[in-house]
Amino acid sequence: MERRFSRSAESTMDSFIMGLVEVAARPGMISFATGLPDNTLFDTQALVRAMEEVMSEDPCGALQYDTPTGYIPLRKRIAERCGRVLGFDVGYEDVLMTSGSQVCFDLIGKMFLDHGDVMAVENPGYLGAIQAYSAYSPDFRGVDIDGEGPDLGQLSAAVGDGARLFYSIPNHQNPSGVSYSEDARRGVAEIIGGSGCVLVEDDAYGELGYHGRVGRTMKSMIPDDTILTGSFSKTISPGMRVGWMVVPEWMRKKAGRSLEACCLQSNTFCQRVIDRFMADVDYDSYLDVLRRGYARKKQVFMDAMEDCLPDTVSWNDPEGGMFVWLRTPEGTDAMRLYERALEGKLVVMPGHPFHVRGGANTIRLNFATPSDEQIADGMRVLGAACRDLYS
Amino acid sequence: MERRFSRSAESTMDSFIMGLVEVAARPGMISFATGLPDNTLFDTQALVRAMEEVMSEDPCGALQYDTPTGYIPLRKRIAERCGRVLGFDVGYEDVLMTSGSQVCFDLIGKMFLDHGDVMAVENPGYLGAIQAYSAYSPDFRGVDIDGEGPDLGQLSAAVGDGARLFYSIPNHQNPSGVSYSEDARRGVAEIIGGSGCVLVEDDAYGELGYHGRVGRTMKSMIPDDTILTGSFSKTISPGMRVGWMVVPEWMRKKAGRSLEACCLQSNTFCQRVIDRFMADVDYDSYLDVLRRGYARKKQVFMDAMEDCLPDTVSWNDPEGGMFVWLRTPEGTDAMRLYERALEGKLVVMPGHPFHVRGGANTIRLNFATPSDEQIADGMRVLGAACRDLYS
Repeated sequence: MERRFSRSAESTMDSFIMGLVEVAARPGMISFATGLPDNTLFDTQALVRAMEEVMSEDPCGALQYDTPTGYIPLRKRIAERCGRVLGFDVGYEDVLMTSGSQVCFDLIGKMFLDHGDVMAVENPGYLGAIQAYSAYSPDFRGVDIDGEGPDLGQLSAAVGDGARLFYSIPNHQNPSGVSYSEDARRGVAEIIGGSGCVLVEDDAYGELGYHGRVGRTMKSMIPDDTILTGSFSKTISPGMRVGWMVVPEWMRKKAGRSLEACCLQSNTFCQRVIDRFMADVDYDSYLDVLRRGYARKKQVFMDAMEDCLPDTVSWNDPEGGMFVWLRTPEGTDAMRLYERALEGKLVVMPGHPFHVRGGANTIRLNFATPSDEQIADGMRVLGAACRDLYS
Repeated sequence: MERRFSRSAESTMDSFIMGLVEVAARPGMISFATGLPDNTLFDTQALVRAMEEVMSEDPCGALQYDTPTGYIPLRKRIAERCGRVLGFDVGYEDVLMTSGSQVCFDLIGKMFLDHGDVMAVENPGYLGAIQAYSAYSPDFRGVDIDGEGPDLGQLSAAVGDGARLFYSIPNHQNPSGVSYSEDARRGVAEIIGGSGCVLVEDDAYGELGYHGRVGRTMKSMIPDDTILTGSFSKTISPGMRVGWMVVPEWMRKKAGRSLEACCLQSNTFCQRVIDRFMADVDYDSYLDVLRRGYARKKQVFMDAMEDCLPDTVSWNDPEGGMFVWLRTPEGTDAMRLYERALEGKLVVMPGHPFHVRGGANTIRLNFATPSDEQIADGMRVLGAACRDLYS
């Protein structure tokens, strides 16, 4: 019998990540591979308190259905933050809550991509999001990212070819850690503004600049052409699955309907807990603690890299987020380094899957997940593997 | 400037429900309209206890990412229940957790429907699910439902035309309250089995038979051709957004990948709370209490209908679930009854939007949401409106 799937199911990419999560969970493994935030920075006590408050004040409301677009007090809180911190004014009606920002990417793909439509993505770019878009089988155009941001010529060419979307992470990019320069932001705004191409500004790491936010949001520069997506996964808890997107007013109605169609609504209880948590802890002070925690962890990681890795490999020093981007010598295949590290019980994430083209000699390292001790042990394994392969 | 959306965004239906939720939330309104379960039957104390246990035992695990396909102990618990209660054996690997069963419908549409593919739906059928499928712009074929189940000739014709999916609710159907007879189940199994058409068996109300489960599951009859979807929304809490689907083994890999692509994973915390809750309360006894609660509520509603409604309208007496199906006289448009009831501050759900064809003279009534007092007051409004319109 024929077992036929849709084009969407056939075109959805493997993420490589799913496999690595399982490998990393094996006993004795140290992981620099996945995108897990630092467990020890979760404020579990304040979350328990917020849960208790939510369940004592209005348990039935917290357990019941809510409106598809989300819990209004939390949306108002996010809208207020957009004005005060992200530099643009928006009403809560244009803040739509989702079960994590991955749902935003899926929804955006669904709303804007027909089979074969041109879509610009960063090269390297965030694999998870690209996997979501791949279900809509677009014609991906890679826009190379260097230390300053995207290649504007390539972006301009893609938009000239009718790109429907450009998916970007202007702050502390996953995987490379790069933030766009002010010039790059202006350049992107000039190309996208009024072109008919919609900019997806993924701000997942925007609040994790070690010394505060880096650069203006694209949404403040070209609000009518930009969807900003946010998430509490890197700041409060990924397991609670609460994200959001801020859409231009012209998109509101269709976005709300598509959201309802794909998932009815996101989690009432967790939205209320997060809203309460943000009020209880004073979210700005909380973020400062978190930023200092990640800055410290990054420094531990950098010091270990300096101590253990040979001169044949190079890396950047990120200003925020949770990733370091490692380059092995030109012409080498970093999959070999992945395999060699695995023999020493260290899991790293090859950079190649994040690329539309090139990138064979890159590795993404996450310093948030491992403990200080695991960083020391893992880096010794990585150093030995590098010296072994690139002598 | 052109503001172009995808075909999917253009083809996604309005649900009518979203609007009604807002209308029903206005002060002083009584709602028989939406699908909200009875607040007073939530076991909030046991849920609070389960939350406390989950957060005291492994707070970091509960707040962190998990595998995309879900929390393994809960999947094992569901798999065990499939064998013991639903009549088929399945390994937990084929139980995939989602953020509610609406996500299942979206995923199933995405995996199996290309633009223009034939898809069979019940007529009337559950609007929310049909809205999810509408994003994939299939050629919907309505299969009429009577008191015994679907019209097998119409189903056979749709499958003969290459239907990719048949979406069905064999137990306590939303909106009509009908359950398939044993003959209807056998007939459906004969038509679908081995045809290449996949049966979607929505079991959202299956556990809410007032005297236990009604009829065999389709999944036990044609396991390789059936996806069974389940949800804790009607039994534990809709706001926690935890549902699942049981897929045939040949679908497992693609379903897992599509699930990861659309939402990464569902809520770690709520999955753990529900797993703990099911163990704490003894889920079978808990369901018995819930069934008695809904049976009582249904009887209150039936008695009020007998007392207040004129002979010009008729209705069924469901064996489970939370809906009663009302028929106004042939040739009348029940939208008029909706409007007239609204003037009396009662919201009901017109049956027409649940139909691919026909159904103008139908209304869906939910007896789970209103209190006993609201049932009495609302039914007086409905009775007066009926007498007024159908004299």
